[in-house]
Formats: sequence, C-alpha cells, structure tokens
Amino acid sequence: MQKRYLFAPGPTQVPPEVLLAMASPMIHHRAPDFVELFEQVQADLQWLFQTTNDVLVLASSGTGGMEGSVANFLSPGDKAIVVNMGKFGERWGKICKSFGVVVDEITVEWGYAVDPKQIIDALKKNPDTKAVFIQASETSTGVANDTQAIADIIRPLADTILVVDAITALGVLDIRTDAWGIDVVVTGSQKALMLPPGLAFVSISEKAWALADKANNVFYYNFKKEAESQRKQQTAFTPAVSLIVGLKEALRMLKAEGLENIFLRHVRLANAMREGVKATGLSIFPKECPSNALTAIQAPDGIDGQKVYSRLRQSYGVTAAGGQDHLKGKIFRIAHMGYVDTFDVIMALSAVEMVLKDLGHPVLLGAGVGKAEELLRKPI
Amino acid sequence: MQKRYLFAPGPTQVPPEVLLAMASPMIHHRAPDFVELFEQVQADLQWLFQTTNDVLVLASSGTGGMEGSVANFLSPGDKAIVVNMGKFGERWGKICKSFGVVVDEITVEWGYAVDPKQIIDALKKNPDTKAVFIQASETSTGVANDTQAIADIIRPLADTILVVDAITALGVLDIRTDAWGIDVVVTGSQKALMLPPGLAFVSISEKAWALADKANNVFYYNFKKEAESQRKQQTAFTPAVSLIVGLKEALRMLKAEGLENIFLRHVRLANAMREGVKATGLSIFPKECPSNALTAIQAPDGIDGQKVYSRLRQSYGVTAAGGQDHLKGKIFRIAHMGYVDTFDVIMALSAVEMVLKDLGHPVLLGAGVGKAEELLRKPI
Repeated sequence: MQKRYLFAPGPTQVPPEVLLAMASPMIHHRAPDFVELFEQVQADLQWLFQTTNDVLVLASSGTGGMEGSVANFLSPGDKAIVVNMGKFGERWGKICKSFGVVVDEITVEWGYAVDPKQIIDALKKNPDTKAVFIQASETSTGVANDTQAIADIIRPLADTILVVDAITALGVLDIRTDAWGIDVVVTGSQKALMLPPGLAFVSISEKAWALADKANNVFYYNFKKEAESQRKQQTAFTPAVSLIVGLKEALRMLKAEGLENIFLRHVRLANAMREGVKATGLSIFPKECPSNALTAIQAPDGIDGQKVYSRLRQSYGVTAAGGQDHLKGKIFRIAHMGYVDTFDVIMALSAVEMVLKDLGHPVLLGAGVGKAEELLRKPI
Repeated sequence: MQKRYLFAPGPTQVPPEVLLAMASPMIHHRAPDFVELFEQVQADLQWLFQTTNDVLVLASSGTGGMEGSVANFLSPGDKAIVVNMGKFGERWGKICKSFGVVVDEITVEWGYAVDPKQIIDALKKNPDTKAVFIQASETSTGVANDTQAIADIIRPLADTILVVDAITALGVLDIRTDAWGIDVVVTGSQKALMLPPGLAFVSISEKAWALADKANNVFYYNFKKEAESQRKQQTAFTPAVSLIVGLKEALRMLKAEGLENIFLRHVRLANAMREGVKATGLSIFPKECPSNALTAIQAPDGIDGQKVYSRLRQSYGVTAAGGQDHLKGKIFRIAHMGYVDTFDVIMALSAVEMVLKDLGHPVLLGAGVGKAEELLRKPI
C-alpha cells in the first residue's frame, strides 16, 4: 500500500470539495443554469485577477492562452520583446515566431530574473515594439520576475502592451493587474486555481483590445469573438462545463481565504521549503528572486537529479519534477502552490531527506523537517 | 486554508477508491446485483478473518456486534469471564450484565496486557464458564493481548467459547481465527477495513453456534436468523448497501496487498511511530505489548494531554484522540491502522513535535521525524 502525493508544478492537488463539485450531474451550456454559473465565475475571476477587465475562460491548456495572447494582438511583421529566462520564456519566442512576429529576445541566464533595465534598453532600440512578453514566475527555474517594475516601464507607453504569463503566479504572488496596468494576464486551471488541467484564463485591457482590432490570425483563440459571447455569459465554442463547475467551488474557497491570506500562505510555505532545503545541506537553484510557487533544488555533487525525481516517485509515491533541457539531472523541483499547507512542505522535505540518504548522500535525517517545523509552527 | 488529517483510532482514513465506489448509484438489496456483491464480500471477509466460519455483516457500529456476541451465546444466569484492561474490556462487562450474565471480571491495570495465567485461574474457579471475552487490541490504552496464548487455553474446552473484540485488531494484527480456534471474532468497518462507520462483522464457529441454540435474547442481533439469510446472500433486515459496495473495494485493495504485507506494514509503521515518539523525548503509555493499531503517548509532566489533543486539531487540522476516564489529560493517542503509509507517521510525529514546542515543552524539532525516516526509508 503506497499513497500518491502530488508536488509537481502542475497539475497540483485538487481539493475534495472541488472534486465533488465536478462530479455533479452535467448541465447544458446553452441553458440558464450555465449563464448563472458563468456570471458568478466571471465576477470571482475578476476578483482573483484584481481587475475590472474581461477575463476570458477558454477550454485549453495554458499554452493555448499564450498562443491567443500573441495571435490576437500582433500581426506578421509586428515587433515584440520576449524575455527568455527559461523554458517558458523560450516558448513565448517560439509562439511569436510561428505567427510571423519579429522577436527581440532578451536572454537571461537560467536561475536569474530579468533586470528591468534590459527591457528599457530593448524598448529604446525598438520604440515601435507592440508587445513585451514575460513570465511572472518561470516554472523551469523557479525564479520570479519583478512584474511590477516591468509594468511600470510599459504602462506609460501608448502603443506597447505588457503580456504576462502568470500560469504559476496568479493566486500565488500578488499580481495587481489593474493597479500596475498589466494588459494581458494568462493563467491555467491546474496550478494555484486548484483544478485539473483544461482551462486557460486571459484578462485583456482596453489598450490590448485596441491592438486586437488590427490582428486576426486565429479561429479558435479569437478573443474578440470569444469576448462577445462571454459578455453574454456564453462561450464561442463548447466550454469545459465540469471544470467550470469546479472552478466556481475553487474560487469560493479562495475567496473565503482572502487574497492577502493566500499570498501570505505561499510566502510562509515557500520560505519554510527553502530554509528546510538549506538545512538538509542542499542549495536552491535560483540565484535571486525565488518564486513562491515552487522550489528548484540543486542536486548535490555526484547525485543525478533525475534519480532523486524518479526515486521520490517509485519508492515514496511522491511526484515532483525533474529539470528541463540543460538542467536535466542538475535540479529537481517541488511545488508548493494551490491546495497546500504545512504538512505538504513537511512531507516533501521528509521524502527528499529519505531519498538523499537512500542515494548515499550524507544528510542528517529530520534536519530539514525540523527547520520547516520551526518556521511553520503556530506559537501561542 | 487548513487541510484536515485523520489519525483517530476510528473512524480512520477512507481511500479515494472506496469513496468513489460508495458514490455509485444505489442498488436494491433484494435484487440479483446484491446477491453477487454479497457473495464476493463474504468470500473476501473469510479471507481477512482467516476462517471458513460464517462471517455475518451487520448494519451496526462495532458495539452492536459485541452486544450480539453476548446475547446470542449466553442466557441470563450463565457465567462469563471478562478481561477488563481498559474502556472496551469494561464494555464487555457492562453488556454481559445488561443481559443477566454472571460476570467474573479480571481487572488488569490500564497499560498492561492480561496474563493468560489469570484466565486459567479464573476458569479453574468457574469451570462452568460459558464464554471468555477479551480485546485483541484495547483501543483505550493501545495495548494488545496475546490472543493466541488465550485461544490455546480455551480451544480444548468443550463448553467454553472465546469471544474476541478485534475491532482495532483485524487487518492490523495476525488474528488466525481458525488456526487458533477463536469462536467469535467481532470487528467494525471504520478501523483497518478503511470504511466509514456503520458495519459490524462477526465470525462464528461451530462451537459457538451450538451455544446459540440455547440463547435467544435479541431480535435485531439474532445471529441464527441473520445467518439463515446471509447463507442465501441476503440479510434479515435492510443492509447498509453503499457501505457494502465500499467494502467490496476495500477488500479488493487489501487482497491486492496480501495479508502478510498488511501485517508487516503495520509493524513497520507502529515501530517507527513508537521510536519516533521516544526520540522526541516522550514515552509511550503501554508498559508492555503495545498494539500496532495505535500508539498511546504519555503527556509529559506539566502538559495536559487534552491540550495536546485539542491543539493538534485546532492549530494543525490533525484529529488524534485524547485519553479516556482516568487517563484523560494523561495521554493522547495516534492511530496508524488501515489506509496509512510512511507519510502519515511522518506528519503525525511532525504535528506532535510542533504542538509540544508550542506548549513550551523542550523538544528538538525534527528529532522524532528523523528517527521515523531512518526506520521507514527504503535503502537501495
């Protein structure tokens, strides 16, 4: 008998309340039930996105939301700045190129955040840039960008929009869409929204909608057409009904906790995870700005990170993540976003301690867990 | 956001597979579907009980199974020996008295097991004893009896039956109903059977059935009438259908693991829990024969055990159990039976460490967890 524990950076754990809601009898999406459901979900998404902008709900993985956020705002030949600080920044570049966008890529060494000055420089070089694409939290390296500082640069520009991949950031980090003036924010269901994969969400500002009038490269991800429907609490194509039913419950739970508490919980858990990792004698991979969504951990010398990953899974039923591309074998990653609490961090650290010991690495069993307990206990 | 963790000595955790099975559409108990289901469940229960005897399935809590195991085999004025080594031994005595049975009670100090010699002595004093009642595992103290040694005493006696409360023992400890010749074994659904409460199970030997011919004190718990129905894969009264559907799945999971593995898992986890408790500087309550189903832990001097219990629950979402009667405030109890694995022990120890620290007790955070990790990790 071995239970399964899910600490991957998506899909993440789904609360039983949400699973139960999704097991409700199917409703029809062209019936009044759906309109009522969708109206509630739209209002709650605006709360989570901290915006009064449209927040589109798409039957799609997060990447579909990214694709739409390129295709709807840029036409072939348009210029874009893309920050590439990991696998998902690289993806912005690939999507832009596949739609004929002229890309100025800012390449940042994996493990670091982008320096906002690099964006200022790139914009000076190309003042006719239509859009800047960044990650709020780069999932491949566990590094967070200073989204606010970057938004401050782009907000005053009349003809440039900021598009933020917040797939592992929204509901983890305090991303103030309206206050900071972020034009497009993309996220997915299977991260801090505590749902299975299958929904993407995109918020769109007035400034971004103006660009959408000129671009029209897609059929399924046609945001204008989608928004026309969604403003009437309908969707252009068949929506993923049961996921939206689950979304309503997930948003109810998040609202009950409150935005500030949600962010503080992630700060607490991420900090305990990082300090716990250090107390086991390991190092975290980010050189700066570690994300509160997940922790990328450096495999110690002589230990293959993929072995840590696979042994966590095979011997202990713990699903984490390995490294991607050139980080494969060098790091392993443990998420602490969404439906997570104190004991998720304790279990993850405990599993890591045991695996390292199993692999012959000298580690004081209980040291990392003890450090996390010190930080997570609730003194009277 | 705080998740709930269930480490009480019943109800215990229910596997998602079982919850899903119980959510299946209702079937009718007088229809062929039920006959097929019940036949499977009966065969699998015999496997779990290690018997070819009838194993009755009752819509009842465990205490109902205990009541039936008195009322069906003893008549007013009959003599019984009852071993009272805790709350549930005391209950055997109360049930016997309420049915007019003349009770010779062997009182054992809480924290100790019964010495089989005491049973020999009591039988010598009352050779016309009809039944001996014991607990295989006394839930109030976390002590296990030597059921085999006791069975060896009673098996040769032609006119005395052994009735074993195995409510927190069956599926945890190796209880060999037929090999040891135990006449009546009682258990409940909400312990190692990994189900919600609501079902009691009673296995009945030929020797016990002979006594049942002379006793007839009950209507609902009439085992003869019940057995007549159940031998035809029916029940005398309306059965708890969804629990029986869940039971089929729980038994499937247990069979997949195998009896020997189940017992070994409980040995491993219980041992790690006890050694972990000691490594935090605490003592376990049992003076001998600790049960592998749960660990009763002595509250340290100056710390109220009820405070540990309530703080585990309120601050950490962990439901354990306090002490009962004169042990209230002196001990707290953590179960590790049923649907439990390595990380249940890790979490429970971690929660205890944090609570003790919160309450001002000097404890090296991580010490107990580290000890458990050492014992539970899976070296290559």
